Amino acid sequence: MRIVIIGGGSAGATAAQFARKQSRDAEIIVIERGHYPEYSRCGLPHALTGEIPQFDDLVEFSSEWFQRNKIDLRLSSEVAHVDASHRTIEIIGPAGRTAEPYDSLVFATGATPSVPKIEGVLDKNQLRAGVFQFKGMDDARSLRQWCDKAKRNVLVVGAGLIGLEVAESLRHLGHEVVVVEYLDSILPTMIDADMTDPIVSAASNMGIRIMTSSAVEALIRKDTIESAKVTSCKDSGSTVLKCDTVILATGQRPDNSLAQSIGCITGRAGHIRVNDRCETNLKGVFGVGDCTEYLDFITGNALLVGLGTLAVKMGEIGGKNAAGGDAHLPKGFLNARVTRLFGMQIAATGPLSTALADASMKSIQSRTKGSTLPAYFPGGKDLLVKLIASADDGRLLSGQIIGEREAAMRIDIISALIMGGLGARDLAQLENAYAPPVAPCVDVLTAAAQAIMIKMERARMV
Amino acid sequence: MRIVIIGGGSAGATAAQFARKQSRDAEIIVIERGHYPEYSRCGLPHALTGEIPQFDDLVEFSSEWFQRNKIDLRLSSEVAHVDASHRTIEIIGPAGRTAEPYDSLVFATGATPSVPKIEGVLDKNQLRAGVFQFKGMDDARSLRQWCDKAKRNVLVVGAGLIGLEVAESLRHLGHEVVVVEYLDSILPTMIDADMTDPIVSAASNMGIRIMTSSAVEALIRKDTIESAKVTSCKDSGSTVLKCDTVILATGQRPDNSLAQSIGCITGRAGHIRVNDRCETNLKGVFGVGDCTEYLDFITGNALLVGLGTLAVKMGEIGGKNAAGGDAHLPKGFLNARVTRLFGMQIAATGPLSTALADASMKSIQSRTKGSTLPAYFPGGKDLLVKLIASADDGRLLSGQIIGEREAAMRIDIISALIMGGLGARDLAQLENAYAPPVAPCVDVLTAAAQAIMIKMERARMV
Repeated sequence: MRIVIIGGGSAGATAAQFARKQSRDAEIIVIERGHYPEYSRCGLPHALTGEIPQFDDLVEFSSEWFQRNKIDLRLSSEVAHVDASHRTIEIIGPAGRTAEPYDSLVFATGATPSVPKIEGVLDKNQLRAGVFQFKGMDDARSLRQWCDKAKRNVLVVGAGLIGLEVAESLRHLGHEVVVVEYLDSILPTMIDADMTDPIVSAASNMGIRIMTSSAVEALIRKDTIESAKVTSCKDSGSTVLKCDTVILATGQRPDNSLAQSIGCITGRAGHIRVNDRCETNLKGVFGVGDCTEYLDFITGNALLVGLGTLAVKMGEIGGKNAAGGDAHLPKGFLNARVTRLFGMQIAATGPLSTALADASMKSIQSRTKGSTLPAYFPGGKDLLVKLIASADDGRLLSGQIIGEREAAMRIDIISALIMGGLGARDLAQLENAYAPPVAPCVDVLTAAAQAIMIKMERARMV
Repeated sequence: MRIVIIGGGSAGATAAQFARKQSRDAEIIVIERGHYPEYSRCGLPHALTGEIPQFDDLVEFSSEWFQRNKIDLRLSSEVAHVDASHRTIEIIGPAGRTAEPYDSLVFATGATPSVPKIEGVLDKNQLRAGVFQFKGMDDARSLRQWCDKAKRNVLVVGAGLIGLEVAESLRHLGHEVVVVEYLDSILPTMIDADMTDPIVSAASNMGIRIMTSSAVEALIRKDTIESAKVTSCKDSGSTVLKCDTVILATGQRPDNSLAQSIGCITGRAGHIRVNDRCETNLKGVFGVGDCTEYLDFITGNALLVGLGTLAVKMGEIGGKNAAGGDAHLPKGFLNARVTRLFGMQIAATGPLSTALADASMKSIQSRTKGSTLPAYFPGGKDLLVKLIASADDGRLLSGQIIGEREAAMRIDIISALIMGGLGARDLAQLENAYAPPVAPCVDVLTAAAQAIMIKMERARMV
């Protein structure tokens, strides 16, 4: 049996790992465009600052690992063509142009940052000097080299996860940073707008300015970039921001031209649709990780995959099945997510309020403040919890938590409760482990659940 | 309506709080033997060290709170007699001997430390100078005063939660500390014996010696205590330990003579049996907190209540019902628990291995090491996880975790999963929120669940 995996990121490498676990003798080939074996892309902003000492520390599946597991990893290689009727692919790599037959094909092609239409960003179809994307190891290394040369005035375009993480890293390195976001709130795919205030404040305290509802129209330059013209989406007023460095972080698109060329069905944003076996509409053809979409656990709508955890979960299922197994994903993903920004953990699970509204799901929400420790114990850190439950039956639908510590862990508790189909009443009854130096007797999650129950009670009375 | 609550600790005070929420006009009387309004007993070891600056900081329900809520708190008062047929109690307090009628009676009498039979501990039925218990505010204050006078050689009798917490506090204050435990492992009601090694090591690193399987036979004294005779339970060999201070921490007994005098049914260890309304076998008579027993969520056997969280949960239910409500506890308690000792969080939920065996429940266990952060991110802290699942269906039964950070939070995740009736497979599928500076992509809980699944798979193959 021959398994070809296109893409050697965390989804592809995990697929190779579990294909090998499933089958000791399958031939497994991983084709990777980049020059490095699998590494943690999520770690790049922290290697940029030096918090992780070396970029090479990020490698998780080393070349030796691939050799030991008898997996044929081909770096610096691109797939030029897939011939689905003959089950062969054509590869262009260091060894020239070769053809490989396959029995199972796994797309783990990931996604590529999109280049926003800003005048002056491109120079002969290449990013102009001083303009960066932030996707892979080479991007991060180039940015680090550029920034090591001088103190920079950085304009980050896009206040999503990557934009803000890079903004913080560059600020830590001593550069001036402004973030411009077209939408009216930051982290728009991660948390609801009404949770963003503490994050904007914390960024400001670090000296990072965030401008929302603003569009970068053009880069103004002589030999080098000198400034950017930014227009308000609200009143169309313009500002000129001094900058010599621009980071594009306006989202990414799945790399699915090959998959589409052989007839894989893709969704609205171009992601390959897969079933709970990570199989596409074509038999023997699988999709895993950021190039795919699966189902939202709560709404049942399409969920665009973009998290490392989901890439690993899909890699496991897709890899096993590509090697003849019959493993299944859960019925949907919660998209449980966290980042650390400006000293705070920002964590969430389940759909945003807007996604629930899109799915016509009526919800009851509570916003509750609490602390990581009892009031009488010194050193407690603030927590802000948003809890969302079904207006029909109190079933928990999603949660968002911001705090210096243990926000992610509390989100995991909510994920576990959602997974079990439990409701606000169950969360109010959950026994949290309590000791004064560890956690409060009545946790903020208990209070958040009680707040939902009171609202439900009132709704019933009306 | 008149509600009399005997005991003003956290169970009693919470009962008063929720009785008031249930009924605006009920007369509520709380009778408390001690001299302080409700305070956190769990905080006492940390006020002893000064980590919590003042003992008074521990007060949670102040005298003003009681006044504001029109609850008649009678401090320094004891109930001499309950006349159940006439529904009156006789109180001896600062105002002398008075009688009070009641409609509902709530026992929140808590528990009293037992005095082990050690020669020389008592002097005319009083604890000898230099011998201490550690239950209430006055005990902690006296101990602090005694220890402030000189550098002490302290013998702690009992390596349960209180014994070890006080041992650590006194060591922090610079005293020499030896802990002697009769059983063959420490924290015997909290974690399994095979989880205790890292704790004993950490204690040793702090300069605290722990002797298990050892009995304190006698205190040797002239004017003051000079040493203690300790005998090994294994080989009956004797040692003489130099000590001038002795802390008795060999467990506690519920204070239920009044409840028994009116016919409340009590369990094997003397705890009042209550139903899911916190009601005793006598109509209108309730029990909440440490003086009661309820049901173990997993085994269905009696669970002796001894946690602050459970006192609060029972206080809520018992208080509401005493005031005419109809609130219910969950079908049982997980007894989710945590302490911080020697720099580590020690957390657990669900029955110990021995309790599962007593209930004839066959289990599969895994012990897994992990870290709070990904391998490549500096600063991760070790975690040791014991996970126990049903051998029949993989359903999670209990868990124990030790680690410097976030052990308690992970126990809460396990509690949530157990509450939802979920199994090892579900935990393996749980999406943990991942970001390099916050938590690993594959959490130690995922690995622990996978280890259980592999064992189940093997068991099926045999």
